[in-house]
Amino acid sequence: MWTFLEDMKRISSVIDSEIDRILSEIEDERLREASEHILKSGGKRLRPFLVVISSQLVGGTVKDAIPGALAVELIHNFSLVHDDIMDRSKMRRGKPTVHEEFGEDMAILTGDAIFSEAFSVLSSPDGNSERVLEAIKILSRTSKILCEGQSMDISFKKRESVSEEEYLEMVKKKTGALIASSVYIGALLGGGNKTECESLWKYGENLGVAFQIRDDWLDLKGDPEKSGKPRGSDIREGSKTIITIHALSSLRGDERDKLLRALGREDISESEIQEVIRILEEAGSISYAEEKAKEFAEKAKKYLEQFEENKYRKYLEEIADFSATREM
Amino acid sequence: MWTFLEDMKRISSVIDSEIDRILSEIEDERLREASEHILKSGGKRLRPFLVVISSQLVGGTVKDAIPGALAVELIHNFSLVHDDIMDRSKMRRGKPTVHEEFGEDMAILTGDAIFSEAFSVLSSPDGNSERVLEAIKILSRTSKILCEGQSMDISFKKRESVSEEEYLEMVKKKTGALIASSVYIGALLGGGNKTECESLWKYGENLGVAFQIRDDWLDLKGDPEKSGKPRGSDIREGSKTIITIHALSSLRGDERDKLLRALGREDISESEIQEVIRILEEAGSISYAEEKAKEFAEKAKKYLEQFEENKYRKYLEEIADFSATREM
Repeated sequence: MWTFLEDMKRISSVIDSEIDRILSEIEDERLREASEHILKSGGKRLRPFLVVISSQLVGGTVKDAIPGALAVELIHNFSLVHDDIMDRSKMRRGKPTVHEEFGEDMAILTGDAIFSEAFSVLSSPDGNSERVLEAIKILSRTSKILCEGQSMDISFKKRESVSEEEYLEMVKKKTGALIASSVYIGALLGGGNKTECESLWKYGENLGVAFQIRDDWLDLKGDPEKSGKPRGSDIREGSKTIITIHALSSLRGDERDKLLRALGREDISESEIQEVIRILEEAGSISYAEEKAKEFAEKAKKYLEQFEENKYRKYLEEIADFSATREM
Repeated sequence: MWTFLEDMKRISSVIDSEIDRILSEIEDERLREASEHILKSGGKRLRPFLVVISSQLVGGTVKDAIPGALAVELIHNFSLVHDDIMDRSKMRRGKPTVHEEFGEDMAILTGDAIFSEAFSVLSSPDGNSERVLEAIKILSRTSKILCEGQSMDISFKKRESVSEEEYLEMVKKKTGALIASSVYIGALLGGGNKTECESLWKYGENLGVAFQIRDDWLDLKGDPEKSGKPRGSDIREGSKTIITIHALSSLRGDERDKLLRALGREDISESEIQEVIRILEEAGSISYAEEKAKEFAEKAKKYLEQFEENKYRKYLEEIADFSATREM
């Protein structure tokens, strides 16, 4: 009987060796090195794990799910590389981002090559053609949704005021959609029916939102050693998070101005970041985010109730709990 | 009985209305505007036409080919948007490039969204699932090859010397592969057999090389009014073309130095460009390119000999002739 962590490691190592194979097939040396830089930088491989468990949840096998698992991981990494360029992020997972290390041109190209590879691996399996085609349709639509979410995120940076509703819409697109596709595609490739796939989509969408809200929280309260990027990156990049949106709607006067001035200031000092965190804490915005993440995780779990109570359902529930309480 | 130009216009208008539909489904306003900027900038729609004729050549219909035709046109436009960022190109088809008009971030995102859409349209048809899956596999592999070609192109700019063989390898990847996929996918969706698809691939690869070599020629000898970009853009961007490669290998002394100094100089004047063109002409490099384009066009046509002599084969032959002699 495998445990959660053992199962996760096992899937992760299958994905790692598939990634090695993909990398070895990239002929251009710089492109291969830059792809390796992101694809082997120690990601959690959460999405592939979600694909595989969802396949198993509906009675499918690990093997059915691998092409889908690999494809969503590749789409995830492609979007990280391109988003990091747009967000001017310097560090990811404790290493320089691809554009910092290899230049912007190579980062654009690396994202594109990884993107192509996602559809390549998904279109090459032995599985049921109709289901595979449906998975490709879902994944390509999701990729477009990711772009829409990123575009919203960029436009929010330039706006003083963004509503929580707008933020949630953006996060649903930018983070929720790919996690939702992961579980949807897993169930699809594992032979699940329409209702099962759609419930899992809803589970995934809420899970993704919980993850992102916790990410907003971790940016201010997490351990930079564990996240691999400096504390307060969202403040520095001027991102609208659920925390700053809550604070901007509840603060008045001086403190609100201080927060506004801090957002998007690339040269902000560590002590100024600390001061902003104090303001956000006093406004109750940080604990608000903590609660909201839990709320979405609970909502996600509701969509699992129709499934048989087995080990895989338990895993998905644990991932929901983890999403809202994780320290990394 | 339709003629070549009438048929081309007819396909082009089907593609245009499909593109309108796709654009109307992009929710994010800026993303929609930027996508429209490139997708409706008056491209020749050559690749969709190739997909459709190839389907008809092997006995398929226009309808069979439309999803493939649209997909290759989208991949073509995605790669133009991203390549223009990397090449710092300011103008395309007589208009500012997407990154000039909407900024680099939006250009990255626009390329990504168009890329996603290509796989979305291809995975949504009513056709034969096995053939559609095979088309997706070909198109995704081709997208990766485009990235490899672009990476070679970028690295060539930094090198003083590039061999003609290396140049041809790069062009085969950067231009040949997508044209080859167009005819391959057309034949595949139209019900063609393996041999037909593979012969068409070879036709397309050589056609693509002829096109690119003629493009190198047009950059120096074409009418900037027709190309929509200033004469000598390749010199200004420091691109290695078959013309500069030929000249660098045959010129010595002063003239070679002059050419080397001109390559990649963004602020080069119109009269200096004229001087470079004179040097290239005297070295025989411009007429060399003219001949080489014709050679590849002839090679392309050879791969059509196995097909029945019908209207569609005639069209493909005419396109090959056009590729090496066109004035725009």
